[in-house]
Amino acid sequence: MSAPAFAASSEPLTIIGGGLVGSLLALYLARRGHQVAIYERRPDPRYQEAAEGRSINLALSDRGWRALEGIGVQDDVRRVALPLYKRAMHSIDGQLTYQAYGRENQAIYSVSRDGLNRTLLDLAEAHPNITLHFNQRCLEVDLHQRQLTMRDTTTQQTHVLTYHRLFGTDGAFSAVRGAMQKTERFNYSQSYLEYGYKELQIVAGTAGKWQLDKEALHIWPRGQYMMIALPNLDGSFNCTLFFPYEGETSFAALQTPAQVQAFFERVFPDAVPLMPNLLPEFAQHPTSSLVTVRCYPWSYQGEVVLIGDASHAIVPFYGQGMNAGFEDCTVLDQLLTEFAGDWDTVFAEFQRRRKPDADAMADLAVYNFQEMRDRVADPRFLLQKKIESKISAQYPDQWLPLYSQVTFSHTPYAEALANGTRQEQIMQRLMPLIHTEADYDTPAVQALVQQEMAQLA
Amino acid sequence: MSAPAFAASSEPLTIIGGGLVGSLLALYLARRGHQVAIYERRPDPRYQEAAEGRSINLALSDRGWRALEGIGVQDDVRRVALPLYKRAMHSIDGQLTYQAYGRENQAIYSVSRDGLNRTLLDLAEAHPNITLHFNQRCLEVDLHQRQLTMRDTTTQQTHVLTYHRLFGTDGAFSAVRGAMQKTERFNYSQSYLEYGYKELQIVAGTAGKWQLDKEALHIWPRGQYMMIALPNLDGSFNCTLFFPYEGETSFAALQTPAQVQAFFERVFPDAVPLMPNLLPEFAQHPTSSLVTVRCYPWSYQGEVVLIGDASHAIVPFYGQGMNAGFEDCTVLDQLLTEFAGDWDTVFAEFQRRRKPDADAMADLAVYNFQEMRDRVADPRFLLQKKIESKISAQYPDQWLPLYSQVTFSHTPYAEALANGTRQEQIMQRLMPLIHTEADYDTPAVQALVQQEMAQLA
Repeated sequence: MSAPAFAASSEPLTIIGGGLVGSLLALYLARRGHQVAIYERRPDPRYQEAAEGRSINLALSDRGWRALEGIGVQDDVRRVALPLYKRAMHSIDGQLTYQAYGRENQAIYSVSRDGLNRTLLDLAEAHPNITLHFNQRCLEVDLHQRQLTMRDTTTQQTHVLTYHRLFGTDGAFSAVRGAMQKTERFNYSQSYLEYGYKELQIVAGTAGKWQLDKEALHIWPRGQYMMIALPNLDGSFNCTLFFPYEGETSFAALQTPAQVQAFFERVFPDAVPLMPNLLPEFAQHPTSSLVTVRCYPWSYQGEVVLIGDASHAIVPFYGQGMNAGFEDCTVLDQLLTEFAGDWDTVFAEFQRRRKPDADAMADLAVYNFQEMRDRVADPRFLLQKKIESKISAQYPDQWLPLYSQVTFSHTPYAEALANGTRQEQIMQRLMPLIHTEADYDTPAVQALVQQEMAQLA
Repeated sequence: MSAPAFAASSEPLTIIGGGLVGSLLALYLARRGHQVAIYERRPDPRYQEAAEGRSINLALSDRGWRALEGIGVQDDVRRVALPLYKRAMHSIDGQLTYQAYGRENQAIYSVSRDGLNRTLLDLAEAHPNITLHFNQRCLEVDLHQRQLTMRDTTTQQTHVLTYHRLFGTDGAFSAVRGAMQKTERFNYSQSYLEYGYKELQIVAGTAGKWQLDKEALHIWPRGQYMMIALPNLDGSFNCTLFFPYEGETSFAALQTPAQVQAFFERVFPDAVPLMPNLLPEFAQHPTSSLVTVRCYPWSYQGEVVLIGDASHAIVPFYGQGMNAGFEDCTVLDQLLTEFAGDWDTVFAEFQRRRKPDADAMADLAVYNFQEMRDRVADPRFLLQKKIESKISAQYPDQWLPLYSQVTFSHTPYAEALANGTRQEQIMQRLMPLIHTEADYDTPAVQALVQQEMAQLA
């Protein structure tokens, strides 16, 4: 069965999921002349308080910015974004160590998930081609009949909709993917870390003053677990504790307020005085799980496609979940230009090009948890990063550190991972010769660097 | 919520799935005094013709035999099983090459899936503690209320059952696992090969005579694909073509009877004269997919457990799917003795002990496809296997080939895989010195073998 004929630009499109990726995608598609209907399970967030304990902030970086630039909204977002130029590591005795994210002036940006979603929804609502439908839970997707069974969660009425072209931007637990999972030979995996996370607050100081450096992402690396903090506009920080579910040091082991208090005082002593609501927050905020979702194919007969977390949910440790979903929009938009009107080819090319990158990013995100919770506390690791910066400064066209490729470039993730793996092998050969930053300039090291770079070229 | 109290041996148990593993498990549990109810989606196979194109035979080996011995049914089964002592490789020009499976008299046994299932169901039906319920489709499992919504597929009536303890033996597309997949932090993957399979027949000769050696598993290895054949009691062989779905040489490329005929004559010339029904069978028999399913945990709160394909469906290339499911029954039975009455511990230990073995077997099964379709056609590979046999004969206590560990021993699969990996590394060092079987006895080779064995010990 094929969709009824429409002029390529007027075909009506249906999006399930009005989160960050769904609302951005709607703007891209509407700009091409399509009528776009967005159905979102939750109430309109613009008329809601942020859900309890879920005032998440996200790290927006170059891939995300490019996607926002594509619809001209980058300046609005930049006004409410806080640049973070470095990591600030807090040792157990209160010492601070810093690691720059990139070259001077390169930063990731702390933005409120909720604020960004509101901005994108305002733009979508103002667009004449887009209609927004909230409180609409997708109960069933009939891929053969191209029908959606929806329930209005305010009236509990169920109704059936027909779609022509369907975009599943409904996140890690996607209903659209749920229907595709039952089709022939659909590869699927959901894989949980044995860690959960809990969100906590560092409050603002007097007169809305930030009590920690607001230009850093703060990390309390503790080997098998960590806490991080990102600044908010109001002077507070959102903290997240990433912590084992079970075991000697775990959520399961912290049962009483006294145990929580004693644990935090022991391992995060410099943070505790800034967290006056620690105990009620710890008790009341949910413990959330950390899942990686992979699947393939991402599309069904040129009629349905999964975008963002629906096809490639990743753990948050590289700050790339939203950026990857936004980059999906950029790539899809390029393909819509390249193969205008030929949805079969657009969807087929989209999944073919994008799947290796999504897989690479999923691996990088899991890898970075170990780096953040453990390796950043190791002086040798920090020295290696400094040496890498020096190589990159000396050979700017040949060596961009992996973190910069992922965060400050548009190099496909899979290519970045492959480059990063080669770079790490070189560093493993170089570092035995290096004991201080100054060693980089010794003739022996310089000779080896030159030799390695010649082979890399 | 915990189950109402019963004497450990009288607690009623519910099994979803009355296939090979479900019926065997019922016999093990009933022997302990439990009342066991089996619910099976399909009609009673004892009153049905075998489903069209699905007259599967299976390779029963030592792990399977041990499980059958546990309930005293091994002699009944052995009477209808055909021993296969070797692989017989058919080259494209009709040459036959052989590879023994193990030591003399070691064999895998070709048995009819349907016949074995009938035997086990007869035994289950005769047991006073077991009730059988066919045509019962499990629509929903409510893990909190411990309720099953079942539909009788003959009357279309739906009814709700309460269970005390539930065993999911309902195969690769398990409904019980489907419910567990929605619980917190359930890890799950379904992964398909890009190959499908189709079942075909080599007919019996005059007077029910086998037209190929009936003591061999026949393989037509063709690099990227293969056909295999296992003997039946009536003189016929069941053939299975394992073949890519897409591509130049694929199911997609064989569209017309003339294409099928030409292809088979070109690549399986010695088999075609024995397959008079090739064209109608090829057209009418389904093309089936090949899936590996992994998940964890396998149990839910000491109340529900997944057994066999429901928790670890594997591809068929090592002939271990049924054997692994039967070994699950052996292991579970041992744990029921060890921790009598303590279901929480039994289920927890079962999944903890058995998961690494299921994962190893899944990997081995995928690996063996490449061996069967490709490597067995390589004289160097066959020479390596002969040399391995010689090492094993010389050092019987130290070296059992991987295939024998998997097939003719009860060594846990994970341990077998680890041993096999070490052995392969040794063979990689040895084989460059060896060009003929006789080379094994040269002083240089013997010295290296001795040295390797000393390190292995």
